[in-house]
Amino acid sequence: MSECFELAKKALGKTSPNPAVGAIVLNKDGLVIGKGFHLKAGSEHAEVMAIREAGKNADNGTLIINLEPCCHMGKTLPCTDLIIKSGIKEVVFSNYDPNPLVNKKSEKILRENKINVISGVLESEGNELNKFFFKWIRNKLPWITLKQAQTLDGKIALQNKKSRWISGEVSRGKVHELRNIYDAVMVGANTVNVDNPELTVRELEGGRNPIRIILDKDLVTSPKSKVFEKNSDVFLITKSGHDKKKLNEYLKDAVNIFEFGEDKDGELDLKAIFLELGKRNILSIFIEAGPGLASELIKNKLIDEYVLFISPMIFGNKTSIPTFNLNEIENINEAYQFGLFDYKKTGNDLMLVLRPNFN
Amino acid sequence: MSECFELAKKALGKTSPNPAVGAIVLNKDGLVIGKGFHLKAGSEHAEVMAIREAGKNADNGTLIINLEPCCHMGKTLPCTDLIIKSGIKEVVFSNYDPNPLVNKKSEKILRENKINVISGVLESEGNELNKFFFKWIRNKLPWITLKQAQTLDGKIALQNKKSRWISGEVSRGKVHELRNIYDAVMVGANTVNVDNPELTVRELEGGRNPIRIILDKDLVTSPKSKVFEKNSDVFLITKSGHDKKKLNEYLKDAVNIFEFGEDKDGELDLKAIFLELGKRNILSIFIEAGPGLASELIKNKLIDEYVLFISPMIFGNKTSIPTFNLNEIENINEAYQFGLFDYKKTGNDLMLVLRPNFN
Repeated sequence: MSECFELAKKALGKTSPNPAVGAIVLNKDGLVIGKGFHLKAGSEHAEVMAIREAGKNADNGTLIINLEPCCHMGKTLPCTDLIIKSGIKEVVFSNYDPNPLVNKKSEKILRENKINVISGVLESEGNELNKFFFKWIRNKLPWITLKQAQTLDGKIALQNKKSRWISGEVSRGKVHELRNIYDAVMVGANTVNVDNPELTVRELEGGRNPIRIILDKDLVTSPKSKVFEKNSDVFLITKSGHDKKKLNEYLKDAVNIFEFGEDKDGELDLKAIFLELGKRNILSIFIEAGPGLASELIKNKLIDEYVLFISPMIFGNKTSIPTFNLNEIENINEAYQFGLFDYKKTGNDLMLVLRPNFN
Repeated sequence: MSECFELAKKALGKTSPNPAVGAIVLNKDGLVIGKGFHLKAGSEHAEVMAIREAGKNADNGTLIINLEPCCHMGKTLPCTDLIIKSGIKEVVFSNYDPNPLVNKKSEKILRENKINVISGVLESEGNELNKFFFKWIRNKLPWITLKQAQTLDGKIALQNKKSRWISGEVSRGKVHELRNIYDAVMVGANTVNVDNPELTVRELEGGRNPIRIILDKDLVTSPKSKVFEKNSDVFLITKSGHDKKKLNEYLKDAVNIFEFGEDKDGELDLKAIFLELGKRNILSIFIEAGPGLASELIKNKLIDEYVLFISPMIFGNKTSIPTFNLNEIENINEAYQFGLFDYKKTGNDLMLVLRPNFN
């Protein structure tokens, strides 16, 4: 199963709105005779690739796959039909497909055709692999990861902004790896104005650029910012009612403009935005946020993961820019609590992966 | 040699002003026939204990020890004499003894007596084991470790102080383990007033209380604070010139008062204090500091290690108390840089061990 996960990971970030799937076929003696993974939506399923490679030797063999095979007619034929025809006698999978058209129905069909089915193998690792897909299909919302880089004392920049970069080269490389597996990268207007980032995936073999989403309620970014260049689609999200002429300044080849309402605090309604992006088959968003956007995300309890790079240095002064500018609290119970999901050294820095305990 | 380190660690924190030493004797066939460790200053050396246990079988054997044996008459006899008499034919050690009375002299004496000497085995691990001793004997200063516990966003407490504790139970247990191996624990007056800590070693088998050092320049602590109770010696450090009557309020069984001058900023002269404490055979100080004392230590570049517990929560507000209140900086090059020496999970928290790159 671990090998299936590795196969699936080959296309992680390229299969949306489909999950990442890897499949292996063993012959009756337990030898690997076929491997496959799902390359992108519309292309053949992992099990189809693996069974085709196995050919006639699949007879009396075993199919190992991280997701319950499909049994419905989609862009491709039902995989249960193919499995039955192939003569495979056992199917081992990790996660049930949460899609109601498939969920446990495929398992039933296979069993009715005298195929032994073992489910739930390395289930939590499988859930982790397809966390974007599982959240989106269940909640209609993309998986939201907030990313920041700070000093030990929680500062993301000096007030004069003469502090790029806080994190080291290895951490920044890791950010490019992460951008590569998310459907979209999001920043606020302030980050565009201060850092002028491209938000592309660079120095990564086989990398592809995510959709770039800019939150700019008041259209304060420069239309000449690098992020509006034609490297991948750009979604410029702003409030309704801007002057058409002003909006048109941003309309270049790759730029799409979305107008949204404001929430009760006069901020862009992030939940509504995420729902709309989910409808557009964006399963995952990597948000590289300054204190304003980060605080909005936390306050509205919209994040699934917080990736924090900590650089081993201290600013220790008063005026540096903090990670958040949240409201005052009176009691430690009001603090936003996380669980430490993972941590590792990235060069000289430390990378923490945290999951909120406040959702 | 690793086993020697383990033996030595049994008395770590109890041997000052001596180093922690473990010794193993192998017979001529390479079997372990004697083990020893140095229990405390004045008691027998590790090699004496190990050679005594080995007895006559030490003949043609090997002595493994983490520190070059002594060759001078101290509170105990020179170990080189005993080694020669025992018939041991090979001595393997990790670190040279930096004490000029011993350094490389013992090695020479052993060689002159046809004993094979192998030095420098696991040298850096040996340096690490006796980092307190090595710093003190070379610089006449104790090893200084600054400890803090903070939220992800660098806060050590809410302004209203209703936030004890930031770190979890496992981290606090780790603090007691650390107090147990340091000769002394130090806090500022503010910490005494806010937290009223005992600064003892609790819930640790075989633990012993360190000397407790209170920096209270203006005598603002209450003489009734728990830290002045008779659990171990207390050094109250204050500025010169206080009224004798006021000073006498603090004079209880275990309390010693030291008066020091101020530095150019009107703060207690920490360097002078550390030198004086070094003279009093304090080899290591664990400083549990708030922002004031922590900033003084950093500014004066007086720390050897920074132990930072990070609790996975966010306060994210403006008024919470930060780890430091250092001066403003204009450029990232002015930040205080560290190397990440070690990191591990302590319960739900993360414990970072950092070493300054600015000394």
